[in-house]
Amino acid sequence: MHQAQHEITINTRGQGLIEFTREAAGFIRESGLQTGLLTVFVRHTSASLLIQENADPNVQHDLLAFFRRLVPEGDALYVHTAEGPDDMPAHVKSALTATTLSIPVADGALLLGTWQGLYLFEHRAAAHRRRVVLHAIGSK
Amino acid sequence: MHQAQHEITINTRGQGLIEFTREAAGFIRESGLQTGLLTVFVRHTSASLLIQENADPNVQHDLLAFFRRLVPEGDALYVHTAEGPDDMPAHVKSALTATTLSIPVADGALLLGTWQGLYLFEHRAAAHRRRVVLHAIGSK
Amino acid sequence: MHQAQHEITINTRGQGLIEFTREAAGFIRESGLQTGLLTVFVRHTSASLLIQENADPNVQHDLLAFFRRLVPEGDALYVHTAEGPDDMPAHVKSALTATTLSIPVADGALLLGTWQGLYLFEHRAAAHRRRVVLHAIGSK
Repeated sequence: MHQAQHEITINTRGQGLIEFTREAAGFIRESGLQTGLLTVFVRHTSASLLIQENADPNVQHDLLAFFRRLVPEGDALYVHTAEGPDDMPAHVKSALTATTLSIPVADGALLLGTWQGLYLFEHRAAAHRRRVVLHAIGSK
Repeated sequence: MHQAQHEITINTRGQGLIEFTREAAGFIRESGLQTGLLTVFVRHTSASLLIQENADPNVQHDLLAFFRRLVPEGDALYVHTAEGPDDMPAHVKSALTATTLSIPVADGALLLGTWQGLYLFEHRAAAHRRRVVLHAIGSK
Repeated sequence: MHQAQHEITINTRGQGLIEFTREAAGFIRESGLQTGLLTVFVRHTSASLLIQENADPNVQHDLLAFFRRLVPEGDALYVHTAEGPDDMPAHVKSALTATTLSIPVADGALLLGTWQGLYLFEHRAAAHRRRVVLHAIGSK
């Protein structure tokens, strides 16, 4: 049984989805693992992870629009406002999506479905450097 | 350390929850693993996974009703409408629930709570064949 | 490759977030694992898991307020009401957050970001004893 671990940095430019399927697939390839499990972990509480359709870019647009409406900025509900009107909504959106994902590996590749891509979901308005940990365990 | 991997197919008949706890438990039993981790992964972006109460079927009814109201069809917000009025809501519901689950194994059995069942959450209106990957790692 | 497994009990006092980062970190330390993966699993369907900011307590207050408004008690939508007005909302909030989390381990420590803490999210109004399973796999 073998393990591999790597941290990637994703530079974001405001709210949106950034695909990193290629980086994750490359990490598995380089690890040499044939059968195993990839775990992805985002080290932040105002950005999250999502597995979504990577065919039609409109899906990303609509996801963003839905979450923006569901968790609006300037909500009178919030006490935690010191870090800006987009900060508390970012925490809520993170809670509603995922901080961690695990994807099985077979024949040296991620077992993603045909239309599935891995995305970082940036919830803050400003540009950020986001750290994502890739961890793989399995056999060569 | 050992691994086992298996893909199951779940035939759905429109929106709803379909339990597959028995299939997952059987997979662990056949793997011979005594201590380990089961990861469940759904290879789609318009169906998702859920661990929920398997005692009162009304819980499933109410979950469905809640998500249907929270993410209504025919929402003017969406641009991605070519695949039908239930498609974009399906992606949103998937984003709000889980694509992947990990359940510890002890004494050769899943460490589920008394009332916990594993469910596929179908979000599309039409019948679909859904592929779910089971991956186990651990010791015999 | 080694594994460790432990169940912790968290006593809750009504709706709220209870941090257990310290218990999880202690479990990893005692396991002796240097590189690996921690999986956390809550054995209930009316309490869930969350990784959130542990700096400003107001974040917890606002998360609670948001979920309470999004999933109100006494909703005419629900059929499953026999266990109290807070029961079905608890199942919905669990479905919207996480039942399972996986966090990579490096140099014998959890790879959490600077502001990330592990929380049990209690959704019921009454006090409960919640069982959370910690499972670690990796190398010493």
